[in-house]
Amino acid sequence: MSRTAPAGTPLGDEFHLYDTTLRDGAQREGISYSVADKLAVARLLDELGVGFIEGGWPGAMPKDTEFFARAAKGELALKHAVLVAFGSTRRAGTTAAQDPQVRALLDSEAPVVTLVAKADLRHIERALRVDVDEACAMVSDTVSFLVGEGRRVFLDAEHFFDGYSYDRDTALRVLDAGANAGADVVVLCDTNGGQLPLGLAETVREVKDRTGFRLGIHCQDDTSCAVANSIAAVQAGATHVQCTANGYGERAGNADLFAVTGNLVAKLGMEVLPTGGAAELTRVSHALAEIANIAPDTHQAYVGSSAFAHKAGLHASAIKVDPLLYNHIDPASVGNGMRVLVTEMAGKASLELKGREFGVDLAGRPEALTSAVAKVKRLEAQGWSFEAADASLELLLRNEIGEDNGPAPFTLESYRVVLDHRADGEVISEATVKVHVSGERVIETAEGNGPVHALDAALRKALQPYLSWLDTVELADYKVRILPSHPGTDATTRVLLESSDGDREWTTVGVHPNIVEASWLAMCDALVHKHLRG
Amino acid sequence: MSRTAPAGTPLGDEFHLYDTTLRDGAQREGISYSVADKLAVARLLDELGVGFIEGGWPGAMPKDTEFFARAAKGELALKHAVLVAFGSTRRAGTTAAQDPQVRALLDSEAPVVTLVAKADLRHIERALRVDVDEACAMVSDTVSFLVGEGRRVFLDAEHFFDGYSYDRDTALRVLDAGANAGADVVVLCDTNGGQLPLGLAETVREVKDRTGFRLGIHCQDDTSCAVANSIAAVQAGATHVQCTANGYGERAGNADLFAVTGNLVAKLGMEVLPTGGAAELTRVSHALAEIANIAPDTHQAYVGSSAFAHKAGLHASAIKVDPLLYNHIDPASVGNGMRVLVTEMAGKASLELKGREFGVDLAGRPEALTSAVAKVKRLEAQGWSFEAADASLELLLRNEIGEDNGPAPFTLESYRVVLDHRADGEVISEATVKVHVSGERVIETAEGNGPVHALDAALRKALQPYLSWLDTVELADYKVRILPSHPGTDATTRVLLESSDGDREWTTVGVHPNIVEASWLAMCDALVHKHLRG
Repeated sequence: MSRTAPAGTPLGDEFHLYDTTLRDGAQREGISYSVADKLAVARLLDELGVGFIEGGWPGAMPKDTEFFARAAKGELALKHAVLVAFGSTRRAGTTAAQDPQVRALLDSEAPVVTLVAKADLRHIERALRVDVDEACAMVSDTVSFLVGEGRRVFLDAEHFFDGYSYDRDTALRVLDAGANAGADVVVLCDTNGGQLPLGLAETVREVKDRTGFRLGIHCQDDTSCAVANSIAAVQAGATHVQCTANGYGERAGNADLFAVTGNLVAKLGMEVLPTGGAAELTRVSHALAEIANIAPDTHQAYVGSSAFAHKAGLHASAIKVDPLLYNHIDPASVGNGMRVLVTEMAGKASLELKGREFGVDLAGRPEALTSAVAKVKRLEAQGWSFEAADASLELLLRNEIGEDNGPAPFTLESYRVVLDHRADGEVISEATVKVHVSGERVIETAEGNGPVHALDAALRKALQPYLSWLDTVELADYKVRILPSHPGTDATTRVLLESSDGDREWTTVGVHPNIVEASWLAMCDALVHKHLRG
Repeated sequence: MSRTAPAGTPLGDEFHLYDTTLRDGAQREGISYSVADKLAVARLLDELGVGFIEGGWPGAMPKDTEFFARAAKGELALKHAVLVAFGSTRRAGTTAAQDPQVRALLDSEAPVVTLVAKADLRHIERALRVDVDEACAMVSDTVSFLVGEGRRVFLDAEHFFDGYSYDRDTALRVLDAGANAGADVVVLCDTNGGQLPLGLAETVREVKDRTGFRLGIHCQDDTSCAVANSIAAVQAGATHVQCTANGYGERAGNADLFAVTGNLVAKLGMEVLPTGGAAELTRVSHALAEIANIAPDTHQAYVGSSAFAHKAGLHASAIKVDPLLYNHIDPASVGNGMRVLVTEMAGKASLELKGREFGVDLAGRPEALTSAVAKVKRLEAQGWSFEAADASLELLLRNEIGEDNGPAPFTLESYRVVLDHRADGEVISEATVKVHVSGERVIETAEGNGPVHALDAALRKALQPYLSWLDTVELADYKVRILPSHPGTDATTRVLLESSDGDREWTTVGVHPNIVEASWLAMCDALVHKHLRG
């Protein structure tokens, strides 16, 4: 069995930063992660340095079962975090060993299991329909069984705060059942999200004093206090805090991992991330929004693009002289920047580093570096995003240093795409391209499922006889994001294209008001990149 | 002079719900209110029943000067609220009576004036460049002068919390200067937004004990705790709380009026609004988002369209029996409603509940319910997603029960879209539609930024003369998701379209391998839904 505690974090196992984006976060309306998405999310969270990653509910959701299977086969090598499987206690009237859902938790091979149990008498009676004795037996049997199988177990006490104020004794008995059977942490959940910080902190302190158990906290944002409640609980003695990326979750959402972490690090001085982790908060937040296909919240605390943007007409010069008088922290400490159009890539240092990655030497070419920075900034202001499109960035940098990459593999003269929704209901997409390749002018027409597919088919038909490698290149993923329109204009479209040739994958980007043209730009970069790299 | 205290609120002048959307909220990037917008915002806030409306900074901002002038001329008749002018204390080295900015506050004819003064020694020395004696004199002179002119005065102590921990004595001297000169409320401002609730509550309690002054609170959201901090301050003794609609404001924003009010009413049992006011929270929040031209935050606490949305496949039947076990308050109490999200796990119970939301009775129609469940499952397997597209789901259910909704507003014969990337590099999109409307066959062609925009333009051109309401319908948001392709097939595209007619928003969905056809399906549903609902 793999390790059950975080690695490389100064606080080690003393404090748990626990992420449940992949399980509770996925409850947000509109989020639907594929297994590949889930693996990408887990890798980013691990890069940031969270301690625990709850990957899903194996046995209940087929995609989650597959995620754990692929993770166990080695597709997910975690540097810092520990993978956690979530599941419920055994059903009434059976044993833990016989319950297929409990077996699925073992089969997931996750070294840690978080079990959920109801801690509110009303839910026990009206939803579970068992008595408190049986509810507690369900908890202790399942915990003991999993601990006996070598798992580390945490217990999520669902509806704890409401339950504690309705019937304190029942709520505490559920905690007892878990902790006495060997659960390492009992997590107090504000499942309906109705708590406020002062009252919640008092309850946490009281429970800590009464039980001495290691306590965790899980907050929902229904009073807009999820982050504040999580921090208040930590101040009151909780040493395990459950969050989701960008606060994704059901209803008003969960406690936002990035704001909670920002507050723990910057306000409470707790080293909950590995060295350098805090400076990754902004980048990871945006990358996770990209995967969820949700526009980042520009006004999000700590990591929003406007979090340190000042419209401070009167104070502009004062801010320039003394920025720290007007910011609650140094924006750079969380990887963010003051003002609006600062991006991850746009600094000289990071572009130079990026260049080194591609084998493009910018260190000795200060004027090329300056102009590359300016170009990236200008394009990013128009909606381009190079953070997830290394191949396009590499082409841009090579271009900027005036590298001679030989002739382009092909050039476009023009294309035309026609879409017909015919009177019989059929929809036809047809594209014609006119390109120049190996000294020839080639015209080809092809049909496709949709405009981009037809254009791709026509281009391939035209280039196939001339470019021997073309058949190996496949479209691996295609993502579209409609960017919020600047006032008075229409929306702009950003396309991210992931290509694969069986050996490697590379990603390119295209931005244009017209989705077909945006796709075309990304398609061209993809082929040029393959031509260059071979 | 008009009244200086709120009217019609059970708590009267004992507690101040103070809105600064029109001044501090307007600092948010992207907000730019016209004078007419400002009047509309003030009317809505008054309908809701806030006690004080800070209208702007007369003398500093021409639009604000005009707003107060038009309000004074009778364009703004406030039922509950009191209008407040915001401004700064006199400059150094002059008298209050001679300072043109102070005179502008009088000229505004606002019965209440909120003055801002720096309460942090560092800001006094480094930004104001005066000593503490002069800073205090600037406060007391200006307060006395305005009080002498019959105004009620509040004092915003800017940077109070940072100042209090840096140099307590200076911070308290500034409060003294204001209160002793006649300011009714001294407002403790977390201007940089760096506070957390437990610490902030302690400071508020301490200041209250030391000074006995009437205290207000003003929080920014840089730690994601603005709402929590405001509530904690009230629990610690503040009786005046400053908020902005939907948390609009600089950087991460301000304390959200709707969440703060929801918490005061529902959690602390304080009657801060006139009778019936709380049930207006959702409507007013959405209307104010409309005026600000910012898409409502669907996940906003209390008022977001997802604030009471449950993705409760497994628990749908439990929710049906006992909704209050799963919601922290009754959604109707804030004018919102519960929604059950239809997901892959959709069962009869959740679709029946959904139908009830739309006024479609499925309980008495078991065969329609069965076939609706089958249809939703089949469509969701193809990539449709109804959880975020209530309007499309409503049309599907109405169709399923064979409801006679009268003739469709229009029918499509065919469309054609042509995209040309010309040899000169220009990209042209042109669409032609052939539709039948009101017994006529109409053919129209239009250009657009991209294929969907061109198609939308052509359809509107064709229908405009026949559908009077068409102009009111606007595209509020457009989301595209490329669904992971099933092996061996090409990707499918899902489009979510959010429409708005100024009063309400509704979302429709379209799925097709061709993005233009998918968009077309969602566009048609959007118009049919508007036609049906009016």
